[in-house]
Amino acid sequence: MSNPVITLTTDFGLADPYVAEMKAVILKINPSALIIDITHQVEKFNVRMGSYILAAVAPYFPDGTIHVAVVDPSVGTKRKPIIIETGRAYFIGPDNGILVLAAKQMDIKNVYEITNPKFMLSKVSSTFHGRDIFAPAAAHLSRGVGPSELGVKISRIVMPKFTGPIFKRDFLEGEIVYIDGFGNIITNITAKHLDLLGVKEKIGVRLGKLKLNLKLCRAYGDVEAKETLAIIGSNDFLEISINQGNAANTYNIKVGDKIRLYRSL
Amino acid sequence: MSNPVITLTTDFGLADPYVAEMKAVILKINPSALIIDITHQVEKFNVRMGSYILAAVAPYFPDGTIHVAVVDPSVGTKRKPIIIETGRAYFIGPDNGILVLAAKQMDIKNVYEITNPKFMLSKVSSTFHGRDIFAPAAAHLSRGVGPSELGVKISRIVMPKFTGPIFKRDFLEGEIVYIDGFGNIITNITAKHLDLLGVKEKIGVRLGKLKLNLKLCRAYGDVEAKETLAIIGSNDFLEISINQGNAANTYNIKVGDKIRLYRSL
Amino acid sequence: MSNPVITLTTDFGLADPYVAEMKAVILKINPSALIIDITHQVEKFNVRMGSYILAAVAPYFPDGTIHVAVVDPSVGTKRKPIIIETGRAYFIGPDNGILVLAAKQMDIKNVYEITNPKFMLSKVSSTFHGRDIFAPAAAHLSRGVGPSELGVKISRIVMPKFTGPIFKRDFLEGEIVYIDGFGNIITNITAKHLDLLGVKEKIGVRLGKLKLNLKLCRAYGDVEAKETLAIIGSNDFLEISINQGNAANTYNIKVGDKIRLYRSL
Repeated sequence: MSNPVITLTTDFGLADPYVAEMKAVILKINPSALIIDITHQVEKFNVRMGSYILAAVAPYFPDGTIHVAVVDPSVGTKRKPIIIETGRAYFIGPDNGILVLAAKQMDIKNVYEITNPKFMLSKVSSTFHGRDIFAPAAAHLSRGVGPSELGVKISRIVMPKFTGPIFKRDFLEGEIVYIDGFGNIITNITAKHLDLLGVKEKIGVRLGKLKLNLKLCRAYGDVEAKETLAIIGSNDFLEISINQGNAANTYNIKVGDKIRLYRSL
Repeated sequence: MSNPVITLTTDFGLADPYVAEMKAVILKINPSALIIDITHQVEKFNVRMGSYILAAVAPYFPDGTIHVAVVDPSVGTKRKPIIIETGRAYFIGPDNGILVLAAKQMDIKNVYEITNPKFMLSKVSSTFHGRDIFAPAAAHLSRGVGPSELGVKISRIVMPKFTGPIFKRDFLEGEIVYIDGFGNIITNITAKHLDLLGVKEKIGVRLGKLKLNLKLCRAYGDVEAKETLAIIGSNDFLEISINQGNAANTYNIKVGDKIRLYRSL
Repeated sequence: MSNPVITLTTDFGLADPYVAEMKAVILKINPSALIIDITHQVEKFNVRMGSYILAAVAPYFPDGTIHVAVVDPSVGTKRKPIIIETGRAYFIGPDNGILVLAAKQMDIKNVYEITNPKFMLSKVSSTFHGRDIFAPAAAHLSRGVGPSELGVKISRIVMPKFTGPIFKRDFLEGEIVYIDGFGNIITNITAKHLDLLGVKEKIGVRLGKLKLNLKLCRAYGDVEAKETLAIIGSNDFLEISINQGNAANTYNIKVGDKIRLYRSL
């Protein structure tokens, strides 16, 4: 049998000792766990960004993977530590919406509040549940402890309010949900929406100071270097990009900005 | 038997090839080694910061872990490469104090100077002992080679001069030892010191331009967002923090700054 | 038998989901693969920098290692996805020169274009071959699938045009190929070139605003802190460095700058 995979997604950064403390706790409980970093560079306290990244990556992992996500501005308050059990994977983290986008893709079966101190560190801080509650829970699950031993079933969790794009008169209004390290501007608009809008090879885009008909490309290299393009990216969302350039910096775009798509400008 | 854990703590950063060269050397000697990064973002040449991080993390790892720490401004000079053997773990690195804080928590048994060329790379550079001496030493130890085969017992090592806080007339003077990625300001003051000062729910703090009575909180969320608080952090030291904000930036605080605590201002 | 090692070298950064997607794909195909990050902080689109780093690190890895390198500005265009088979390792990535420097050190045996869709993800994007083609190829190779099953032998690949240093009248002209995180300025000049120039203990250096006879040192600590030195670095190239300082920032040097070496200035 192969070693169980545990992934980590946090806003802790890589300079501080926090990620290593989580890994140490996991390995002490289950030395066979295979720990994979998804990212530790979620913007501090940005639950939505963590949520987007986890949802993008989780489907690629083997069945049975245990995903731990900790972007947790309310650690130590009344927000619950939870486990979401799906048909393909477990998701562990704070009940603030960060797990839901990823878990919904996989058919949610049960949700548990982690309550059993037997499966937490002996001393639980109020500032670092990643180390004291979530990491041990993942490690115990990976050893075969059932989620119902770790806590109690609950029926309600915090649902994130991430809206899809909206059709208005002659345009489709979406939102920028993510900007990657290349400066690609990633929207909440899919190929299906573009079909409904009736867009094929060209698309009219209003986004910040950008007002242009863009070529809807297959590859970044379909246009010349430094030229702007529209493309369905590797996670199936419409991106506005510059071939070998940085679109977000060039057009001064931020997460949360609105984008309007037209059949033609 | 589970795979032996080797941890790495350096100031090499993650962009350059250096960390990967150390991992390659380890895996060539012991393909079963489980290598865990503690951090590679210690401030360049900052032995104290590396020392603090290693001491914070090491206790969470399984018994038998081998910790390699390389912040090594004097590489290639007369400073010795050493192994500290404790009751729970090995610590490998330059004899400049970086290992001591962590090792002292675990009952130091023996210290060895690494001298046996048989357990170094065949060509040892004068600029990169992390790859040429420390990584091979860790890998051989992890395969069961005894520390006395790697070198000779020595009786003296460089002791870091990190002082604790001092009680003065009506206040306690401590020092900022670390600022984390959230901007939490971490001091060398523990809950025990606060007890001796007679502090309970409120604490008077003078730190840079901050002169305030702060609530001594259990969780960051015990105060409103953007409010300043005092808290015993996850590694048991007093922190000055801003809930969902960055205290170090807000108050312009740096490592090494003094902090004064009063029962009340 | 030990687990097969797969390394990753990219310009993806660590914040985005891309590296984790590659790891997920690998683990789904081969749960026993041992994935080691070389770096994900190659400068965006800088094939030469990725090439240099891979060549520096690859020789330290165990025989049989599979190296995946993805700096791929032309993803989705006609550039080929290739596998280079050498006597000691496989190299997988785009046919843009990134693999060649490393592979040439190890006796190139065959080159294959990856063409067999059976060993790609079922849906191949035009923007992320790292995940859809290169990661699966590495994972299948690591399970024992032969390279000739993944594609077809080809006889020509793109050769990078990285030139060596040139002897002119009374000086040797080389180039800056890399600047590391410590600010060490790494050239394309080796100890052998210095011998030919007839240099021993001192060397005349013209580099940007630096015009100095420098001590050719064994260790950074051979000169006082903050003093400039010349040294053959850990990857056997001449470096211009400042002991405990940052030479590249101090002298405002960039990759691609020319350096001239004289017996004496």
